[in-house]
Amino acid sequence: MPKTLIDVDLAQSPYDNPMIHNRWHPDIPMAVWVKPGDDFVLETYDWTGGAIKNDDSADDVRDVDLSTVHFLSGPVGVEGAEPGDLLVVDLLDIGAKDDSLWGFNGFFSKKNGGGFLTEHFPLAQKSIWDFHGIYTSSRHIPGVKFAGLIHPGLIGCLPDQALLDTWNKREIDFIATEPDRVPPLANAPFAPTAHMGKMTGEARDKAAAEGARTVPPREHGGNCDIKDLSRGSKVFFPVYVDGAGLSVGDLHFSQGDGEITFCGAIEMAGWVHMKVSLIKGGMAKYGIKNPVFQPSPLVPNYKDYLIFEGISVDEQGKQHYLDVHVAYRQACLNAIEYLKKFGYSGAQAYSILGSAPVQGHISGVVDIPNACATLWLPTEIFEFDIKPNASGPIQHIKGDIQMPLSQDR
Amino acid sequence: MPKTLIDVDLAQSPYDNPMIHNRWHPDIPMAVWVKPGDDFVLETYDWTGGAIKNDDSADDVRDVDLSTVHFLSGPVGVEGAEPGDLLVVDLLDIGAKDDSLWGFNGFFSKKNGGGFLTEHFPLAQKSIWDFHGIYTSSRHIPGVKFAGLIHPGLIGCLPDQALLDTWNKREIDFIATEPDRVPPLANAPFAPTAHMGKMTGEARDKAAAEGARTVPPREHGGNCDIKDLSRGSKVFFPVYVDGAGLSVGDLHFSQGDGEITFCGAIEMAGWVHMKVSLIKGGMAKYGIKNPVFQPSPLVPNYKDYLIFEGISVDEQGKQHYLDVHVAYRQACLNAIEYLKKFGYSGAQAYSILGSAPVQGHISGVVDIPNACATLWLPTEIFEFDIKPNASGPIQHIKGDIQMPLSQDR
Amino acid sequence: MPKTLIDVDLAQSPYDNPMIHNRWHPDIPMAVWVKPGDDFVLETYDWTGGAIKNDDSADDVRDVDLSTVHFLSGPVGVEGAEPGDLLVVDLLDIGAKDDSLWGFNGFFSKKNGGGFLTEHFPLAQKSIWDFHGIYTSSRHIPGVKFAGLIHPGLIGCLPDQALLDTWNKREIDFIATEPDRVPPLANAPFAPTAHMGKMTGEARDKAAAEGARTVPPREHGGNCDIKDLSRGSKVFFPVYVDGAGLSVGDLHFSQGDGEITFCGAIEMAGWVHMKVSLIKGGMAKYGIKNPVFQPSPLVPNYKDYLIFEGISVDEQGKQHYLDVHVAYRQACLNAIEYLKKFGYSGAQAYSILGSAPVQGHISGVVDIPNACATLWLPTEIFEFDIKPNASGPIQHIKGDIQMPLSQDR
Amino acid sequence: MPKTLIDVDLAQSPYDNPMIHNRWHPDIPMAVWVKPGDDFVLETYDWTGGAIKNDDSADDVRDVDLSTVHFLSGPVGVEGAEPGDLLVVDLLDIGAKDDSLWGFNGFFSKKNGGGFLTEHFPLAQKSIWDFHGIYTSSRHIPGVKFAGLIHPGLIGCLPDQALLDTWNKREIDFIATEPDRVPPLANAPFAPTAHMGKMTGEARDKAAAEGARTVPPREHGGNCDIKDLSRGSKVFFPVYVDGAGLSVGDLHFSQGDGEITFCGAIEMAGWVHMKVSLIKGGMAKYGIKNPVFQPSPLVPNYKDYLIFEGISVDEQGKQHYLDVHVAYRQACLNAIEYLKKFGYSGAQAYSILGSAPVQGHISGVVDIPNACATLWLPTEIFEFDIKPNASGPIQHIKGDIQMPLSQDR
Repeated sequence: MPKTLIDVDLAQSPYDNPMIHNRWHPDIPMAVWVKPGDDFVLETYDWTGGAIKNDDSADDVRDVDLSTVHFLSGPVGVEGAEPGDLLVVDLLDIGAKDDSLWGFNGFFSKKNGGGFLTEHFPLAQKSIWDFHGIYTSSRHIPGVKFAGLIHPGLIGCLPDQALLDTWNKREIDFIATEPDRVPPLANAPFAPTAHMGKMTGEARDKAAAEGARTVPPREHGGNCDIKDLSRGSKVFFPVYVDGAGLSVGDLHFSQGDGEITFCGAIEMAGWVHMKVSLIKGGMAKYGIKNPVFQPSPLVPNYKDYLIFEGISVDEQGKQHYLDVHVAYRQACLNAIEYLKKFGYSGAQAYSILGSAPVQGHISGVVDIPNACATLWLPTEIFEFDIKPNASGPIQHIKGDIQMPLSQDR
Repeated sequence: MPKTLIDVDLAQSPYDNPMIHNRWHPDIPMAVWVKPGDDFVLETYDWTGGAIKNDDSADDVRDVDLSTVHFLSGPVGVEGAEPGDLLVVDLLDIGAKDDSLWGFNGFFSKKNGGGFLTEHFPLAQKSIWDFHGIYTSSRHIPGVKFAGLIHPGLIGCLPDQALLDTWNKREIDFIATEPDRVPPLANAPFAPTAHMGKMTGEARDKAAAEGARTVPPREHGGNCDIKDLSRGSKVFFPVYVDGAGLSVGDLHFSQGDGEITFCGAIEMAGWVHMKVSLIKGGMAKYGIKNPVFQPSPLVPNYKDYLIFEGISVDEQGKQHYLDVHVAYRQACLNAIEYLKKFGYSGAQAYSILGSAPVQGHISGVVDIPNACATLWLPTEIFEFDIKPNASGPIQHIKGDIQMPLSQDR
Repeated sequence: MPKTLIDVDLAQSPYDNPMIHNRWHPDIPMAVWVKPGDDFVLETYDWTGGAIKNDDSADDVRDVDLSTVHFLSGPVGVEGAEPGDLLVVDLLDIGAKDDSLWGFNGFFSKKNGGGFLTEHFPLAQKSIWDFHGIYTSSRHIPGVKFAGLIHPGLIGCLPDQALLDTWNKREIDFIATEPDRVPPLANAPFAPTAHMGKMTGEARDKAAAEGARTVPPREHGGNCDIKDLSRGSKVFFPVYVDGAGLSVGDLHFSQGDGEITFCGAIEMAGWVHMKVSLIKGGMAKYGIKNPVFQPSPLVPNYKDYLIFEGISVDEQGKQHYLDVHVAYRQACLNAIEYLKKFGYSGAQAYSILGSAPVQGHISGVVDIPNACATLWLPTEIFEFDIKPNASGPIQHIKGDIQMPLSQDR
Repeated sequence: MPKTLIDVDLAQSPYDNPMIHNRWHPDIPMAVWVKPGDDFVLETYDWTGGAIKNDDSADDVRDVDLSTVHFLSGPVGVEGAEPGDLLVVDLLDIGAKDDSLWGFNGFFSKKNGGGFLTEHFPLAQKSIWDFHGIYTSSRHIPGVKFAGLIHPGLIGCLPDQALLDTWNKREIDFIATEPDRVPPLANAPFAPTAHMGKMTGEARDKAAAEGARTVPPREHGGNCDIKDLSRGSKVFFPVYVDGAGLSVGDLHFSQGDGEITFCGAIEMAGWVHMKVSLIKGGMAKYGIKNPVFQPSPLVPNYKDYLIFEGISVDEQGKQHYLDVHVAYRQACLNAIEYLKKFGYSGAQAYSILGSAPVQGHISGVVDIPNACATLWLPTEIFEFDIKPNASGPIQHIKGDIQMPLSQDR
């Protein structure tokens, strides 16, 4: 039986657990040490550390303090790991905690975080998803059920000081280009809510003041929100510091490509069973800058898709140059309009796209001036037929069930 | 046996074939008429109308006149089709012409078209791919073979005048924001090389002067370059004019998501066997603006992928805001660096990414400021193992075979 | 363009084509010779050489002379092939002939051939299937359409004299155990209808008298009717004679595991594009007695199955010992009863199981005394939902369309 | 959190747990009752109730008392279930017990149980498989690792008295045709080792004397050993008694089609999370005699197979009539010979075929006199390349590791 190296008590604040941290910094001490070849279990909080509840109000989503995220378990030190190595991580299994068989999906208020379609859904909303073995369904979104493609939204190794400095300069300079933007362009270090693991005192304060926020994916991986980093996959991470310092958190029971709802996928507390090994000098050997990975042989196998196209002309008819972000937004909006014909509210449709195993493909990026993106919606997750036919759509969803919404204060 | 409604003689100039056109305009007369329920075959030129040859020089790629593309077969009028309908197109089969069992992939010179990685590969290059039944391989790129995911890069219905006007205004205004850019931001109408099908005289000249270029995907579909619109798929197209006016061309034997090499996928002349039917009033019934489609049950089924991540920090270290285009470019560059470790030249690796059934996923688009894109490279298409291991890569490719390259003149 | 080495004129009797044969014998001269590495096309008759017509009578099925089958194209001599080698055959592509885009499925009369369920369907029946690009449907069986998994039912190399003698002794001895059985236990050599390719005169007569019938699969492969030997697959055949002598025929547009209807799959005339190479001494190197193969990456990908179980207790309640044949028969009968609830006749249901890409699995063969077999019916091939639900089945098929049936004479 | 309705303590004899039984009889009292719509967990012993140990001796396999198997958890009564209904069982999840993360595969001695290849492997042997998250590997069989396709080998509802009588008569009559056979043709009721759940005293003795053994699959399902009844699948069971009486056990971490090694798959103790509902009168509505099921969207997705053919001519060259059992045996023997060329012992190869997700297809059952069966071996489960090539096989396995074997006493 694999050893659980980091325990998480969901009734305890993550700030009180020294094996948790919420910033990236090379000085964060290893929470535990392992040897290459070891396999072990790490428990994790949900990304907000328990701020979002299993209830029918979106107030918690509206009011969340986003400077506190993401609560990560680690860092795990791997004996013998040195800068330039590749840390090979086998994600042997991933699951929810037995006392927490549910997850949440939501949209942040535009004033507090926003999201991909924040102009269309500017208020906080929430849906709760219950787990039934490998399946999930929501009491807030009828007619849909699917098998989870469980994965950590966030996983990666500690940066060294040079990489950290690069990140901070890059992002702080970027924020400075439009400092008053809501939502902001990026998140600067913020010491007050930083949780630096075992660090205390002055050292903690110094590191907290420059510790990188965990929101974006970066060179080391981090918050990639790649739905395919699922159990059974094998990931090759760049190593920047002695011991590597692997941390993980932000588990998702399921997510669509893009994690478009931002808050987020189907977010959950849980555990990861993993095994680590090393490829010495692997970064140079293979020319690797960002992580690479191999997918699992064991993933939900939906294949009867309805595919929506979008191009890089925005909702106001404005032309953008090969902009895949805009194109994907159009594909998503097209899918939402389509699902509304079956009775879903726009919010419910948006939530489905954020949480179901939806694929987002970069279909064309060279045909000036329009990029083309496609959103692949698996039809098998619905309890009724959503494919087009000559008779037109049937309004299966009656509108009596709605997603909780909270007005801005 | 299905009837061939449009024949193409590859020895003849497409300009001499009145059932071909290379601009979008509502006044282009139907080349042929069919009834709902009919199935039929249309032959097509390759997108350049034969400008690129099966030889070992990239001069033709360097010198191509891009104002002539794409040569399309059609428009096909469908009896009873009216604006607001959905035209349902079953792509029953697609193939290369028996006397032309090869295709080309290339990079345009930055001075004449460019492409996704034109800053890295600024000169014209070309690879020729031979078809062996369902498989293809290239004499210019050793060690790789794969089954084709055959599809039309370009298919869609004629716009009405209002839609055409929208396109022209949108794109001409856009060009005006940076009129001297090389490559340009978009392509304006250009009468001299316009081929308006059966139109002649003054009417032709008037339409040619405002006919939309075929390069970008637009609301009607058009040059979407979606690799999954393959034989066996079913597409639902918006109808804007009486008779619908379906045209098709730009066939690809195979393509990676994004068609990143621009010139292009594995481009070929060929034929499409299709069946048409109608959903009356379908655009409003289903809330459809852009085409939607269902994929085929019969597509090459590679699944052992090596997946490369990219984030929206560019090659110069500059931060971009949730820019999937930049992120995908990084993922592609990461894959190219990786493949070079096995002996491929950068150009060969780039060509593989543009022509093999590579997937490009929009993995994360909300984690400010970085988008995350992933490039999925099927390992099974290589004759040797490309997965990372502790011993490091073996240089299987010896560098004795190179892709033709032509210096700018 | 690959060369067509054997042409077939469907208006000509196969007996008049010297590149066709219908018996196995080492002395049949090579029809053509090729070199390792060559790729080429062979055209083929349907297995009956044109005896079954595209019409609405089953008289031709009732009256067929089964001593004439199967008409094979070949043998193809491969230079340098020697006994003990493995002949590697890449099935690069397979198709129907352009002037013959249809196929047939049928049941033989119990008095003339029989079949898997001949006790239940003792009379000759027939269904005709039209090909629409990659899809097929039948005017005799409404509500079902599927993509073809095209393959040769029969392919293999010439036996040497010792192997031929083994076959003849084994099967003639076997017939002798129940010589008057209808249908017979096996088919003995039968000179009058033998077609020995280019052989003439006395040599022909001698070989015809001992040439093995083509009906059963044997050590060399032969009439294996493996639906997965489809285009894109790679097969390793044992070589017994100098030059190997590869012959092929009995093409199927599609077939269910077991080819249970016997007459047969969806039988068609067509062509095979293949490439040959050699593994010298491969039989001993790899310990190979029967052919082995690798499947194609490009096969119809149905996955939403309804799975029927059967055990080795027969229709009369009689116990059989781990008899998979009996178990599979029960699974098939169970599926037929099920489909009848949706309005299909038993014959139509039986025909679907014989021709659609149905899987038959050997699920359990050790739990004495019952074997367990499962029949996997893809639900996606039906135009309506066939999965069980609380409301019970809807009779979508109205019974107005029936399969032709011919009474025994 | 789902409720665990039946607990199993692996340190306790199953005979001491009144919620366990090892015979089929309508009078066995329900262990627990649930309502339609409920979901719940049942823990289970391994099929032998703990007789086989995680060690390196096959003595326990040799000496096992097969009259004690299989220990099942149940029966579960479902309120409102009546004869003629279909009990719909959603297998929501399945797993090993946390304190027992291993399983066993073995061959019985021919004198005590035998197996599919007992003539070739007549002595007791054993391999132990450790579970690493979703993967398993064995210290007794190097070079192979795969993801488990977890499933219950045995699941079904209680028979009514009439069905039980049919079983007993059918099987006892059958045994009588060859009463001294070793291994026997079937297993008759055997009271001494019967465990009749909560029954006691005279009632227990009476029922024990006629309770059907659990070895074979029968009309109700039972010991089908169908590897595809995995978590996420949905099964429709015939109901024969009021309350249905669903029992389950014999969990497998993984198994090849046929469970050819008999002892058995990778056998384990564990738990099943399931949900039940009813289709009233479903047996008649859908014409269902044996269970039918729908597979899971979440199963290990290996696809690069090497496929071995076998025909119904046995190892001694004897002809059998369309005998799929014999044909599959030849395919298995062919695969074993092949794997030996890479260094595996025959026993190791046999064990791989019994435990890995190998497919067994009934490929042809009408081509008299030979059936054709195919064994599909996924090449991706091996750490080295097992596909044939011109250089011949490399002996990756060195023979220093062997499977425990115990001589008969």
